Amino acid sequence: MLDGACGGHDKNNPATWLDRFPVWRAMSGDGWQRALDASTIVSFAAGTPLLQCGEQAEHFVIVLHGVVRVYETAESGREICLYRVRSGEICVLTVSKLLKAKGLCAQAIAEQDVRLLIMPLEHFYRLMATSERFRLQLMAAMANCLSDIMHLVSQVSFQRLDLRLARFIARLARQQSSSLLKFTHQDVANELGTTREVVSRLLKDLEHMGCVRLSRGNIRVVSVEALQKGVGDKTQ
Amino acid sequence: MLDGACGGHDKNNPATWLDRFPVWRAMSGDGWQRALDASTIVSFAAGTPLLQCGEQAEHFVIVLHGVVRVYETAESGREICLYRVRSGEICVLTVSKLLKAKGLCAQAIAEQDVRLLIMPLEHFYRLMATSERFRLQLMAAMANCLSDIMHLVSQVSFQRLDLRLARFIARLARQQSSSLLKFTHQDVANELGTTREVVSRLLKDLEHMGCVRLSRGNIRVVSVEALQKGVGDKTQ
Repeated sequence: MLDGACGGHDKNNPATWLDRFPVWRAMSGDGWQRALDASTIVSFAAGTPLLQCGEQAEHFVIVLHGVVRVYETAESGREICLYRVRSGEICVLTVSKLLKAKGLCAQAIAEQDVRLLIMPLEHFYRLMATSERFRLQLMAAMANCLSDIMHLVSQVSFQRLDLRLARFIARLARQQSSSLLKFTHQDVANELGTTREVVSRLLKDLEHMGCVRLSRGNIRVVSVEALQKGVGDKTQ
Repeated sequence: MLDGACGGHDKNNPATWLDRFPVWRAMSGDGWQRALDASTIVSFAAGTPLLQCGEQAEHFVIVLHGVVRVYETAESGREICLYRVRSGEICVLTVSKLLKAKGLCAQAIAEQDVRLLIMPLEHFYRLMATSERFRLQLMAAMANCLSDIMHLVSQVSFQRLDLRLARFIARLARQQSSSLLKFTHQDVANELGTTREVVSRLLKDLEHMGCVRLSRGNIRVVSVEALQKGVGDKTQ
């Protein structure tokens, strides 16, 4: 995964990067220092596949900068986003692959340019044995990931797709602090686990309702409130 | 959770129960023995709620006998089964609640009569610190649970409901080694995250296709092969 042509080693000190995150700044001790000394920082450009279905993980990974998208793919080629790993967070998919979880077929891709801290396995296992703080941090990351994916099961099972679409667009607009979303209809489909055709049809409905304005490769949010209200009015 | 009126303490020795499972039989050492000495065995009748949404966990739990069903509920009352915890397995939901995972709202119920090993938290945390085998066992359970739920996201997102229904019925018939399934249409709906009405309609389709025969409170599988083939023929 981590020796691809797109990766370039960075000379920066891992400790300097991790110091920005309270949970990692609170780590201390010789074992932690040795683990950081043995770790490297690797950069990948947006769009680089980081972990494929069936591929084994060979390192413990913390995202230092950027966003990693973890997703599942159907035989039909349809995708659904499972969760994202953001700066300061542990890549739980990597940990699960290290633990050889059965039948794990999720994939990871750099959604933005990313910098990753790559820790050799012997240091990961030593920290697990010696640092209660590290252990709890890791297990909390796994528990939170589990909670997020259980929530996704609820959403996919119980929420109408037009509602999930409207909420996704509203959330994106808030996160980007911009009404102009550079997401193609295919990107939205890959987020929600549906097809481009279905997304295009639902987006047209939202346009007719005055919630969004569509143009090539762009979705402009007219009003987050209108988006939420418009779809809410349709809810039975 | 564990002091409800339905629970009755069992005098049996936890070690005797755990000895049936290779992963637990392989555990040894003073710490493990002390943890077992401090643990209790509790029984609950089928149908007893074990962990509610919002409720905190106060013990580490291993299922010794029977099956625990972990599920999510929608505001509308619809349910979907997330996974089951079977004898010899760790209740990962409890562990996630111990770790105070954010927004965790899954619930657990005894699907059959169950016996649970209840371990006080101080022993759980001590084993985490001192036993690599215990630690890896716990983390593997969390990783496998994550993998199962990621797989469920794929199924719910990408598979047609009639196909999921047919596969569920075929799996039940194989597991029970019986063609007569004592599952109501509501039970099936709660398994798949849909409504009784939808399940009844899809089951009638399967009956017309000669895959099952329906009677009050029962589903009789005419042929597992016919069930799989019949639905397969309808797949686009």
